[in-house]
Amino acid sequence: MTSHRSSISRDSLERLTATEAARLLAGREITAEALTRACLDRIAEREPAVHAWTVIDADAAVEQARVLDRGPIRGLLHGLPLGVKDLFDTAGLFTAYGSPIYHGHRPIADAATVSLCREAGAVVLGKTVTTEFATFQPGPTRNPHNVAHTPGGSSSGSAAAVADCMVPLAFGTQTAGSIIRPAAFCGVVGYKPSFGHVSRAGVKSLSETLDTVGGFGRTVQDAALLGAVIMRDRRLAELAPGEAPSIGLFRGPDWSSAEPDAQQAMEVAADALSAAGARVEEVPVPDYFAALTAIQQDVMAFEAYQALSHERRTAPQQISPMLTDMLDRGGRISFAQHQRNLASVVSFQRQADQLFSEHDVLMTPGAAGEAPRAVDGTGDPLFCRSWTLLGLPCVQLPVMAGSRSLPVGVQCVGRFAADLAVLQAACWVHEHLAR
Amino acid sequence: MTSHRSSISRDSLERLTATEAARLLAGREITAEALTRACLDRIAEREPAVHAWTVIDADAAVEQARVLDRGPIRGLLHGLPLGVKDLFDTAGLFTAYGSPIYHGHRPIADAATVSLCREAGAVVLGKTVTTEFATFQPGPTRNPHNVAHTPGGSSSGSAAAVADCMVPLAFGTQTAGSIIRPAAFCGVVGYKPSFGHVSRAGVKSLSETLDTVGGFGRTVQDAALLGAVIMRDRRLAELAPGEAPSIGLFRGPDWSSAEPDAQQAMEVAADALSAAGARVEEVPVPDYFAALTAIQQDVMAFEAYQALSHERRTAPQQISPMLTDMLDRGGRISFAQHQRNLASVVSFQRQADQLFSEHDVLMTPGAAGEAPRAVDGTGDPLFCRSWTLLGLPCVQLPVMAGSRSLPVGVQCVGRFAADLAVLQAACWVHEHLAR
Repeated sequence: MTSHRSSISRDSLERLTATEAARLLAGREITAEALTRACLDRIAEREPAVHAWTVIDADAAVEQARVLDRGPIRGLLHGLPLGVKDLFDTAGLFTAYGSPIYHGHRPIADAATVSLCREAGAVVLGKTVTTEFATFQPGPTRNPHNVAHTPGGSSSGSAAAVADCMVPLAFGTQTAGSIIRPAAFCGVVGYKPSFGHVSRAGVKSLSETLDTVGGFGRTVQDAALLGAVIMRDRRLAELAPGEAPSIGLFRGPDWSSAEPDAQQAMEVAADALSAAGARVEEVPVPDYFAALTAIQQDVMAFEAYQALSHERRTAPQQISPMLTDMLDRGGRISFAQHQRNLASVVSFQRQADQLFSEHDVLMTPGAAGEAPRAVDGTGDPLFCRSWTLLGLPCVQLPVMAGSRSLPVGVQCVGRFAADLAVLQAACWVHEHLAR
Repeated sequence: MTSHRSSISRDSLERLTATEAARLLAGREITAEALTRACLDRIAEREPAVHAWTVIDADAAVEQARVLDRGPIRGLLHGLPLGVKDLFDTAGLFTAYGSPIYHGHRPIADAATVSLCREAGAVVLGKTVTTEFATFQPGPTRNPHNVAHTPGGSSSGSAAAVADCMVPLAFGTQTAGSIIRPAAFCGVVGYKPSFGHVSRAGVKSLSETLDTVGGFGRTVQDAALLGAVIMRDRRLAELAPGEAPSIGLFRGPDWSSAEPDAQQAMEVAADALSAAGARVEEVPVPDYFAALTAIQQDVMAFEAYQALSHERRTAPQQISPMLTDMLDRGGRISFAQHQRNLASVVSFQRQADQLFSEHDVLMTPGAAGEAPRAVDGTGDPLFCRSWTLLGLPCVQLPVMAGSRSLPVGVQCVGRFAADLAVLQAACWVHEHLAR
């Protein structure tokens, strides 16, 4: 993990973290063009194996970088290359939402969050692979640590591209586990903000109650920097690990479904953080918690059936069997049941505050273990569904290499709307894990 | 009001309510083509004065009606002409969101709710005028009761088209008061569902926290029929006025800003409903209530600044001065302030349940009075902002003609997620007001 922060020569600019690069760019010590070209070179080298991108907008990116180099510092992301999940609209740039139905589609406008990043000086390098409408049918992306394995989904290309130093920052979205799981499998930092804090305008909708825009970086500061721009919260751009946090070790109701690697990562992290001075205590699983996963699945299926009505109606044969099954299931859930589900979510959200009565963050698995083989799909979002349903801010951190030398990590979860606090704690945790 | 329900000759099909027309269509007593042509004839006659539409898709609508007439009954809206607010994407059909920036834009897909209506057999007649991005810069639409006056906004064309019998049903959205206010000014029924119950996929986003899809009809049953389809709640399609409801008379903190017409409508309604057997009692204004309007304005401005980032960045000169002012104000609100606003909303939503402890619905003004003159804008959403912020289901009902012979009404507001109950109560109220 520390390799990204060690001395970087000018011919490996693509390995700079976003935060480092932003500082060098703001000081005119490197140019946006050089950084952009370094990333494009890295993509040229690695893309044939990793397949992280659906479109690479090389010429426009270099031109945009040159414009930035000639002008004033635009904002927090001045000159930083950015990967945009192909679930986000980009003006004039192919956007297919991971579905053959939208092959060749060029939106008229940027998604609001893409535009906020451009306004802050980001250079959009291209679009990254998403699974079909951010569900479970995989795209071509492979895990850069071992291309026989999945990068996870649905934000497959973004997680792989950041992990492989093709780009320092990339957008993701999470409805079940689509930021945290690929971050875990690719060994990068994934940040899912609190629900409702980031505009979804121009992002293909799957579930009103669950869809959340977030992103990936190679450090917590990097992911927070992206958050600072899309939420317009300057405080996130000045993140520093503060005092040792109080950490609740939350094994959760699915601990027995976690593989030995994931269980070991929790123990390794707990030991290291205790030794570094953090208070680390077990947090018992509340009774209601085991019910959340099934409710999340039902809410997602019901709302996806509505959100994808146009595609269901006009191009059913171009929807994968896996997604068709989910939509069929959603179509069989009654509105009365859905209302009961939504009501229970509100009630659980109120109760979830109690989980944090003694601790700044919970530490819990973000995935069942290492990335499965690519032929077996994008992995199970089991360890994320509950947190997404509760709308809580989540940060995935890499901890160690697992039994097959693939990344294994933990996720830090915070109180609703306490994104600054959870990012600060995650920052401390990440620094002390990396030592 | 009762005129719509009295005997209808075959040469005034456009005056049928949606519910009546749906019954006749399902029984093959009238054809979708005849109904569609009757609506198109009405549009041809009245549109030059009312300007309710941005696009009329006459040929496609007639063709679609013919297809429906030849096939099986598709669903609840089989053969019913529908007006779609030009804030909703429609596949291949011009969609400009009320802004010159999107002049000539043809979306690739239908909004989810439009598609759900098509799936249920609706015939999309065209797009209805919205104000600029559903904010305050008026479009060309005039009030069909007096074309010197505004129909209200932002769902200007939809409310006017339904009021003028151009179409039995039309879509609206509400972020401040954009369904209830135009329904009040045009003398039709407007229905804003509980927040989060209807997909916004494919509807131009203004505010994540506030935007709500709903619609217009000439009876409560009609508005509920549209709700039944977009929420997939069959119960709303079988609405009948039940027993006399218990009604809380809620004058609210802005009663003194209500014009004599609006105050009188409340008294007239209260007297009529009491006489008809309803329990009608004053409900005092809770202390927190007066704070809601300002919070709604801040939340809307902050989120609009994000949602319209692309337009701000790429075409600022094509944004009206009125909207520019709102966006500038939103840009000056800090994220920390916005988070405090969102947190207070959650707290107020919890407290708002108490408003309904003794009553099935609250009855309260939906607008300050009659429609202002068109030169003075689309009117003030003051009487809607708080209810939208609280996310509660609202139904606007016409009560009487005001001092300038324009419609004046009341709105019924229900407990969160109690849409069925508030529509049932509103149905009873409407029937007894119309006597």
